[in-house]
Amino acid sequence: MADEKWQTEITKIGPGEIRVRGYHITDVMEKLSYAETVYLILKGELPSKAEAELMNAILVSSIDHGATPPSVLGTRTVMSGGNSLNAAIAGGVLVIGDTHGGAIEQSARIMQEWVAEHEGDAADTIAAELVDWLKANKRRMPGFGHRLHNVDPRTGKLFEIAERHGYSGKHIQLCKAIESALEKQLGRKLPINVDGAIAAVISDMGFDWRLGKGFFIISRVPGLIAHAYEEKQRERPMRKLGPLPFEYDGPDDREV
Amino acid sequence: MADEKWQTEITKIGPGEIRVRGYHITDVMEKLSYAETVYLILKGELPSKAEAELMNAILVSSIDHGATPPSVLGTRTVMSGGNSLNAAIAGGVLVIGDTHGGAIEQSARIMQEWVAEHEGDAADTIAAELVDWLKANKRRMPGFGHRLHNVDPRTGKLFEIAERHGYSGKHIQLCKAIESALEKQLGRKLPINVDGAIAAVISDMGFDWRLGKGFFIISRVPGLIAHAYEEKQRERPMRKLGPLPFEYDGPDDREV
Amino acid sequence: MADEKWQTEITKIGPGEIRVRGYHITDVMEKLSYAETVYLILKGELPSKAEAELMNAILVSSIDHGATPPSVLGTRTVMSGGNSLNAAIAGGVLVIGDTHGGAIEQSARIMQEWVAEHEGDAADTIAAELVDWLKANKRRMPGFGHRLHNVDPRTGKLFEIAERHGYSGKHIQLCKAIESALEKQLGRKLPINVDGAIAAVISDMGFDWRLGKGFFIISRVPGLIAHAYEEKQRERPMRKLGPLPFEYDGPDDREV
Amino acid sequence: MADEKWQTEITKIGPGEIRVRGYHITDVMEKLSYAETVYLILKGELPSKAEAELMNAILVSSIDHGATPPSVLGTRTVMSGGNSLNAAIAGGVLVIGDTHGGAIEQSARIMQEWVAEHEGDAADTIAAELVDWLKANKRRMPGFGHRLHNVDPRTGKLFEIAERHGYSGKHIQLCKAIESALEKQLGRKLPINVDGAIAAVISDMGFDWRLGKGFFIISRVPGLIAHAYEEKQRERPMRKLGPLPFEYDGPDDREV
Repeated sequence: MADEKWQTEITKIGPGEIRVRGYHITDVMEKLSYAETVYLILKGELPSKAEAELMNAILVSSIDHGATPPSVLGTRTVMSGGNSLNAAIAGGVLVIGDTHGGAIEQSARIMQEWVAEHEGDAADTIAAELVDWLKANKRRMPGFGHRLHNVDPRTGKLFEIAERHGYSGKHIQLCKAIESALEKQLGRKLPINVDGAIAAVISDMGFDWRLGKGFFIISRVPGLIAHAYEEKQRERPMRKLGPLPFEYDGPDDREV
Repeated sequence: MADEKWQTEITKIGPGEIRVRGYHITDVMEKLSYAETVYLILKGELPSKAEAELMNAILVSSIDHGATPPSVLGTRTVMSGGNSLNAAIAGGVLVIGDTHGGAIEQSARIMQEWVAEHEGDAADTIAAELVDWLKANKRRMPGFGHRLHNVDPRTGKLFEIAERHGYSGKHIQLCKAIESALEKQLGRKLPINVDGAIAAVISDMGFDWRLGKGFFIISRVPGLIAHAYEEKQRERPMRKLGPLPFEYDGPDDREV
Repeated sequence: MADEKWQTEITKIGPGEIRVRGYHITDVMEKLSYAETVYLILKGELPSKAEAELMNAILVSSIDHGATPPSVLGTRTVMSGGNSLNAAIAGGVLVIGDTHGGAIEQSARIMQEWVAEHEGDAADTIAAELVDWLKANKRRMPGFGHRLHNVDPRTGKLFEIAERHGYSGKHIQLCKAIESALEKQLGRKLPINVDGAIAAVISDMGFDWRLGKGFFIISRVPGLIAHAYEEKQRERPMRKLGPLPFEYDGPDDREV
Repeated sequence: MADEKWQTEITKIGPGEIRVRGYHITDVMEKLSYAETVYLILKGELPSKAEAELMNAILVSSIDHGATPPSVLGTRTVMSGGNSLNAAIAGGVLVIGDTHGGAIEQSARIMQEWVAEHEGDAADTIAAELVDWLKANKRRMPGFGHRLHNVDPRTGKLFEIAERHGYSGKHIQLCKAIESALEKQLGRKLPINVDGAIAAVISDMGFDWRLGKGFFIISRVPGLIAHAYEEKQRERPMRKLGPLPFEYDGPDDREV
């Protein structure tokens, strides 16, 4: 039926030919970094140098956060039940919902909607109004505060890279203004965490907030694979999993 | 209980501190590419320059293969059923089993086992024996041949990068020798496909074959996200999915 | 920590003792049907005879709907990729989202909310107001109409069992009244489908609409297992899956 | 293409007609229990009265085993991450691998293979040889022993129902003979657990061992739904999950 013909604009395939968003895969393999290719496949266009570095830093930033995040528990539990590597990764990705890793999406949504609805306003003005609105509606601003890190080191690094390139659009500005406005409102700092920083950067890159969780998933999958593999290699099947005492016994602190 | 204390050697976490295999995350964000970080988190050590380029090319090579692979069908079907992005990605990753994307793992396993069991033998000798053994046991060599590409362009590019760096260990040598031996046996070329080439390279890098599917999963996840997002943006829910006529309507052929 | 102690009211476990909602498992195995046990574990109490028969009919009604539903495509695609039975079932369950199998949940939600907010009103009055509201908000009433069945035979049977027992609470009454009100509004019948009928019955049973999708999942899992097994037994791996010509070659029509 | 036409023998669908294995769905809804329908859809034929009661007891027996099994952890972890009910159930089903719930499959496989390869031999003879073979190969017999229950009450009940109906084929006989042979070998009782008992019964029913995990999945899904729902209703998102102190606060012990 005619209506069953459909279109895709991602990749063109033919014998001996694979073109991602128009570029031949062997050129991409040769000339682009993986972070640039991720940008390309999700955005449709190549990143600038600043965007390439930022995308790389974003994907690196969340690659792993140790043994305690719920997605790691999901992956290790599936692996421990005697399943394949892909099932274990799927099990971890399934956990990445609205309350784990969802902050990027939700933070980006708020920033994108408030920027769009307040065109022309200064970041400080939008931020002041936004934090009042959040308080009135008893809502928290996603992407701010962290249960472990007082200051999230990844946030600082991400913004440092952005500043080095003079990369600062309306969403990064709003994000920083929200931090200030929250401090005024609360009387204490509720610092931007890595999710909030990523949300601001991808919003300035022009990505739809609906893709927010996607960047977290891409970033975290190698970490989940490392945990699945370690579970398989070092632990007996069906062991108890959860908030049990554990210790890091990997390499000592070192410099790149 | 004492036996409930367990160890992890992947990432050390503390307030303001995230160290992946000993390296502080902000240093990694600044100085390493995502491909290098993937190598680091799965191997425990930093790659050489050759290995960094090869890992980048591996992760780029399989990022997408258009609309027809079964993992794309899995992802689009979940998305079309009215589900979240992470559920759709999990649905695609679940499909990546022994017969889809599993060739890296199985090809690497055979190459690693035959190299280990025939220490000191020349690649040609091992290959000749291996293809005889495969024939006698009516088994196919995974990682060779492709239903679409007569010559897989990604294979050539991967080996070209390896050669440029003089990166050629026992597994890459065996892989090429198998191609020759198969040609002798079959009377026609059954070329190394991208899975076979990746299998050879990661084996020379020293990765356990059990991680083989992991590299394919890391590589393909951004492609699955692009398909999930496109499905959501361009198609109506619950449409028929499968081998239906479609056409590529993205950017024209272009150069990086 | 004190706050880490948590409660569960589902099943009590001890050596030689398994008590579901207070009842010993061996008594339940002996005296209750599976449908009654499902009712018990989700509701916390035993069903009446009418409720037991209705729950049985609900779980039977949706056990399978042939080869075309998207959850079957999800399951068969995972199986075809060379994965385990449980991964294939997970792949099918993942598809059961808002637009596939979600109608029970959404239909029950509307009926439960409108009944609760219009206490004391007659079903006809609520229905008339509801269909006006739906039209004004350009929304469809979930659980009505079917792309294949003009009259869904399962709906008739479910209501027939209910009537036989005089089981007709406010939600079943509202459901039937909505059918009449929709007919007046549209000038043609948009009959209650099996999802709408199940939604009405479980609402009268007192189940939270948030459990609606659960009944569909329980019902459909054996069907998915049958499809996963058939795929494995009868088809070659990695075959094309989707809207391809197929035919039923099972037993001829017969009577129970 | 001709080779793209495929067959299915599960369910025939037409306008107003749904026939499972030849029987019209409304007849099945009226006349069969859910357990009988599960038997029908997986076997292709109706069960005898004994088989219907046994299938019901099997599906009831494993509906839940409290808060500690890893599949419950999988389901609750996904739910706690802020995901949908179907994703949480998929997350739990993914855990049901070779080392959790896989004993039915593996136990049935061994029993079916040894019965088939020793046609004509007495159960005691086969069992003696089997336990010797297991010892020589340093393998455990799946389906025997339980970390919690010295005597699994579900095993006794299942065999009691079988005996009441004089239902005792070669696999039930072998299963009991293995228990005796293991006792002789080990000098202590290693009792048949519920997985072993189910494996024996479904083998006598003529089900392929490859379906073994399927019966456990069908049985457990309602339990997983109960846990997912309880997690959502009673707990805060992202709480710590795992081997934490908990207590049962449901109904007191009672009689059916």
